[in-house]
Parts: sequence; C-alpha cells; structure tokens
Amino acid sequence: MHACIVAVGSEMLTPFRVDTNSLVITERLNAIGFEVRLKAIVGDEVDELADVLRGALGWADLIVMTGGLGPTQDDITRDAVARVLQLPLDVNEAIVDRIRERFARRGLTMSDINRRQAMVPRGAALVDNANGTAPGLWLEHGSTAIVLLPGPPREMAPMLDALVRDRLAPRSGGAGVFRRVLKITGRTESDVDACAQPIYGGWLEQPVPISTTILAVTGQIELHLTARAASRAEADAVLEPAVRQLQSALGDTVYSVDGRALEAVVGDLLRAKQLTIAVAESCTGGLLASRLTDVPGSSDYVERGAVCYSNRAKVEWLGVPAPLIAEHGAVSEPVARAMADGVRTRAGTPVGIGVTGIAGPGGGTAQKPVGTVAIAVLAGDVERVRTFQFIGGREPVKFQATQAALNMLRLMLK
Amino acid sequence: MHACIVAVGSEMLTPFRVDTNSLVITERLNAIGFEVRLKAIVGDEVDELADVLRGALGWADLIVMTGGLGPTQDDITRDAVARVLQLPLDVNEAIVDRIRERFARRGLTMSDINRRQAMVPRGAALVDNANGTAPGLWLEHGSTAIVLLPGPPREMAPMLDALVRDRLAPRSGGAGVFRRVLKITGRTESDVDACAQPIYGGWLEQPVPISTTILAVTGQIELHLTARAASRAEADAVLEPAVRQLQSALGDTVYSVDGRALEAVVGDLLRAKQLTIAVAESCTGGLLASRLTDVPGSSDYVERGAVCYSNRAKVEWLGVPAPLIAEHGAVSEPVARAMADGVRTRAGTPVGIGVTGIAGPGGGTAQKPVGTVAIAVLAGDVERVRTFQFIGGREPVKFQATQAALNMLRLMLK
Repeated sequence: MHACIVAVGSEMLTPFRVDTNSLVITERLNAIGFEVRLKAIVGDEVDELADVLRGALGWADLIVMTGGLGPTQDDITRDAVARVLQLPLDVNEAIVDRIRERFARRGLTMSDINRRQAMVPRGAALVDNANGTAPGLWLEHGSTAIVLLPGPPREMAPMLDALVRDRLAPRSGGAGVFRRVLKITGRTESDVDACAQPIYGGWLEQPVPISTTILAVTGQIELHLTARAASRAEADAVLEPAVRQLQSALGDTVYSVDGRALEAVVGDLLRAKQLTIAVAESCTGGLLASRLTDVPGSSDYVERGAVCYSNRAKVEWLGVPAPLIAEHGAVSEPVARAMADGVRTRAGTPVGIGVTGIAGPGGGTAQKPVGTVAIAVLAGDVERVRTFQFIGGREPVKFQATQAALNMLRLMLK
Repeated sequence: MHACIVAVGSEMLTPFRVDTNSLVITERLNAIGFEVRLKAIVGDEVDELADVLRGALGWADLIVMTGGLGPTQDDITRDAVARVLQLPLDVNEAIVDRIRERFARRGLTMSDINRRQAMVPRGAALVDNANGTAPGLWLEHGSTAIVLLPGPPREMAPMLDALVRDRLAPRSGGAGVFRRVLKITGRTESDVDACAQPIYGGWLEQPVPISTTILAVTGQIELHLTARAASRAEADAVLEPAVRQLQSALGDTVYSVDGRALEAVVGDLLRAKQLTIAVAESCTGGLLASRLTDVPGSSDYVERGAVCYSNRAKVEWLGVPAPLIAEHGAVSEPVARAMADGVRTRAGTPVGIGVTGIAGPGGGTAQKPVGTVAIAVLAGDVERVRTFQFIGGREPVKFQATQAALNMLRLMLK
C-alpha cells in the first residue's frame, strides 16, 4: 500500500521551518504496512495543492494532508480537495455549533470567519478533534483514501491515531514495515557497498523481501534494512539473520546494530570492563570529551579531559617533553602518544587518548596539510597510534577525528 | 521566478530523517528573488522521481535537486533526469580521473562502481565539488534550469553558492527577498515578543513591508525580518533602521545581527581586546571548549580547557580546595569560582570560566535538581558568578549552560 503525505503551509517554504508532522505520520503508517513514497510541501495556493493532489491520486492508496484547515483565507486545503474531487462544499451546522461552544467555554464569541472551518466537501466523514476547532475529514475517491488533518502536532497526532485504529489498519490487513540500522565507521561508502551488495542483492526476491539503503554521513556509513511483513515476528525472522550476515561480511567496522551512537557503544564497553578514561585533545578542542559525556551515566567512567591548544599546556599539564614537540612538531604521532600517556598518568586511569592535528582552515603545510590528525589510544599495556588525513572544513575534521579516536578505542576493547 | 526543490533519498521517507538542505537552498534562492513553491521528497525510485520532475517542468523556472548522486545502484537522480529530458548518459573520463585522484590522496583505490558518479546526461555542465567525489550538474530545458547537487550539506552548500553567484543571480534580475536575523539570548520568547511586537506591528503597512517571524530554539530566540524589494539597496534602506530600532528596544540581550554564532561573537571580543582564555568544565563535559574552538583562528585566544568530571581532577588539576567541595558541594558557586580561578592561574590567562552542574538524567536532589548549573566568569579583576536552572534533557542542559557562560563573558567584555 502506497502513501503520499502533503504538508500545507507557506511557513514551511521559508528558510526557517521544516515539516516534522510527516515523521510521526510515517511511523504510524509504516507500522500498518503503508509505505510513504512521496512527501510534498506546498504553500497556501489552491492551484499548487490541486496539482499535487491530482498527481498523487494516480498512484497513492492513501493521501494524508496536514495543515490549511484554519479559519482564514489562506487555509485552502478544503477548497483544493473539493475542486480536484469536483465536490461542492457544504456548511455543516453541527460543526458550527461545536466551534461556537468551544469559544463559549473559553468566554469568547465565535467570529463569522470560523464558519469556514465548518465547510465540508460533500460526502466527507468527520474526524473528531479533541484539541482544536478544525475537525479532520476522511474521503474516498476510487481506491484512494484521502485524510485531511490540522497542522498543529498535538491536534494532528491523536486524530491520526484514531484513524489508524478505526479505518486504516483494517484496510492494510495487519502487515507492516520493519527496520534495522547497521552503523559502520572506518570504511568508505563505496567500499561498504562493494562488500554488502552481493549479500543484500538477492534479498528483494525473498518471500519476505528486504530492501536496503546505504547512507553516508560525516564519519560513518549507515545501512538501513527494511522488511515488509505480516507481523513483527515474521519480519524479525528475516531481519535477524540478514543483520548477522552483513555483520560477518563487514566485520568489526560495524559498531552498532541497535541504534546506539559510537560514544554510547564505547561507554558500554568501558563500563563492562570497569575501565575509566582520560582524554587529551588539541585540534578536536573538547569535542571528544563532550561526545563521551553526552552519554547519561558517563561520569562513572570519564575521569577527566584536557584541551591543550597551546604547546605550553601540553608541556605543563600533560608532561609532553618540549624537545619531543621541537623534534617532531606538535602534530605528530610521538606527541599524540605523549599526550595520551600524560593525561592517563595524571588522571590515574587505565585508558588514555591523545589527539593532535590541524582542523583548519589555517595552519596546514605541504607535509602536514589541513585535516592531518595524529591519534594515540592507550589501554592498559596495549596501544595504537595512527595518523589520519581527513577531508572537509573545520567542524567535519573535528568530528571525524573524534569518530576515529572512539573507533580505535572500541576495536581495542572488543 | 518560481522554484521547486526536490530532495532524493529513501532515508528521508523514514520516520528518522527530514530534509534540511531545503532550508539553506530556500534562503539562498529567496535572496536572489526566487520563490519556492513546492518541496518534494522522493525515495530512490526512478519512476517516482521522474513523475515529480515532469510535473515541475510544467511551471518551475528552476528545479534544484539534492541527493542521489552517489556511486551506488540506489543513487538514481542522474538516471531520472536523463529519462525525463530524453538525454543519453555518457561517462566523463575527466570526472573519473578526479575521483581516482581523490581516493589516491587518502591512500585508497577507487572501486569500479565509482564510475557511476562520472555519468553525465549529455549537454550538462559540471559544478565543481571541493568537498566530495560527486560533481554537481547544471542543465537547461526550455526556460527551466535544472540543478543536481549532492546530498551532504557541506558538499552541497558551497556548490550552491557558486551557482547562485555565477548562474542564478544573473537570471533573477536583482529583485529578491532580503532578511536580517537578530539573535537574542537570556530572555524568553514571550518576553521578546511583548517587547518587539509594538515596534514591528506596523511594518507590514510600509511601502516596502517587513514581515517578522519569531523563532525559539534551544538557548536562544531569533527574530527574522523579511523584506521583499526591488534591490538589496532598497531592502537595506528599510531593514537597517528596523534592526536598530529592535536592538535599542531589546538592549544587550541581542548578541548578533550579522549571523555570527555566540562563540564567534565572544571570540571576536577576545581577539579585539587581545585577551586569552582558559575554561574548566564539569557538567558541560568539553562542550564549552569545543564551541569556542569551532571558530577558525580560535587557537589565537584559547589557551586550554579542563574537563574535570571527578572531584579528584578538580582538586589536583585546578587546585579547588577539597574542603570547599565538602562544604558547598561540587555543584556550587564557590566551586565554580575556584575552578575558573584555578584554570586561569595555571594557564596564565586573564580570562577564566568555571562551569559545574547536574546535566542529568541522574544526580539531581531536592535542593539541586537536574538542570542546576553554577557558572563563574573571571576577566581581569571583574567577576560574575551565577546559578541557573535549565530545563530539558542532558544535551539541551549542556548546550544552555555553555550558552549562558558565553553570554556572561560577552556582557563583561562589551
């Protein structure tokens, strides 16, 4: 079953506001087997909205529209629907009475423009709105169901829930869309795909098909597996082995299959092994410590962090030997190692990380261009020291460096 | 001039992700007079995308598409465009070479599937991508310009800027939608509105009208002023006095009228006064140092930062007297002050900040609930110490605490 979501409102065509109702709607629809194929965001223009509606009527089993049901001239959803379905708009006096009562309860008089909210395309069923004046509407046209809901999320969501329960779930036959996400770091998107494609390539032809999406975001790759199945149990029966197959092909670059962020995975490993950690950062400027401490309960294992931008701070606070900096430069593996060792010695923790690099935009040289980052991770008597070359602006370089440091530690603790 | 923005990617049709690229695109297009009439979000399906494209070709002067330019089978934007415009796809060997070089610079070998990224609908002009492998594409069909850009924001935005400058601004004839943003911290939304509404209330009736939007985000309020004018000069003539009027009404809670973030404003003040800074953080866990060092060139004034989660770190590294912690608790104004003083003494900087609090979700008490944060800012012989009560989860509390600390310093340096 295919669904289209249309958000109506000129404010969502400005640089300041995105439509977020569609996230809730998608979640509810997926759970009963509707797949969202298109989301459209249109302004308060009857012509535009009518065009989008006409297009969706050609393929959608369900069209959910939010917004544009208010009392003013720029609330045009009812008019567009009536025009496209060629239905007259009637004033529903029961709705007028309900709106008048609602105003009266708050000690207000209903103004005439609110009668617009009682205009109903002929044949539409009303959907109660417990939290506002505009009722929702339900129409059917051929095999397509059309739902009109108000824009404010606290009005929209309960009305949607009622519709899902009473009208939509019975149409869908109980099936649903179920997902798993594999999070991967330390490989490129094309490398992940080259490795995973031979595996997931055949999954679309299974009795319970799984579709796969690959997503590259800064510092990580995500593989989204989606199964359409008659029940959660049926979906789990195909998704669990699928996840395991990809995990064993991709190896330990997969850091999470349950939604956890990398800092949470690392935190759980530290907690499980009863280890504490201290970090010394130069180019990441505190971001590594901040990510570690984004995890609730991280005070159990984060002992301290040092942001040592200046060489003086590296020498005085971390005990990095000044001659080491003079010989190798502040951005070098020996200095990263000395930072990691210095911070863990001072903190008295078994785990220490040192990060030093050039985040840019200034400070790069031919030998050490912007994006060069040396990272040292010491855990007990195991150590890893590596130099990375990251690409991107200051903030992406900072983030990728923290991602690499966390991932080095994860691989050492596994 | 009417524009349509199409975001391509199945992940944006899940309950987990919204398209945010369109906000940046809308802002840039508005500035040169394009009005966005429709935003569409489609999955990785050639048929769907082709339908949306065909619809938009009927009315749009400009179609901007983001995403779906990666190397994998589900990157289908090139194919859909080629199909709708009935153009063959050619492999561009110059692009292949560039991609191969990019991989080589990172010590990697290009895999064959990356050749997909070099497929170009015949006649398309290339748009350089400084931050990724996929180039952008520019095509014209009748009177409609079609732009294909990659999905990652840090790749997309600079490419869009170049297109706006070189190709789109010349088409638009100079008229546009011009905006100013006032950023405010330390006041509530309703308080800002009560103060600003009597001023902006009449601006819609001016010959060059200004519309005003108030937007509350974590830790700050933004006032967006929008004027539609024949030229930038005409817009400036009304927007400049409008900004000044609001600034004088809202006083020094306005920290930026030129788009700068608070950390950049504080950085510019430090640089102008030739001051250096050191920070000591407990509950913010490095976020304050990280925000300060997000600003390019911040190594000129950030000397060091200490993340002292444990009391031991506070005592040993910052010299906070243990009896002070025992008497007042780690989350207290005296301890925040001792942290600020300790870190600046050790760093030898004139400015020091100490932040200590309870970010939650655990650790709160009746006297000091989650969200309690004590902040001390010392600058030369001036000092401010305050206790705040923030609302929200762990990350919002962390962010608001850094916002408050930066704002205290800003007000002291002004």
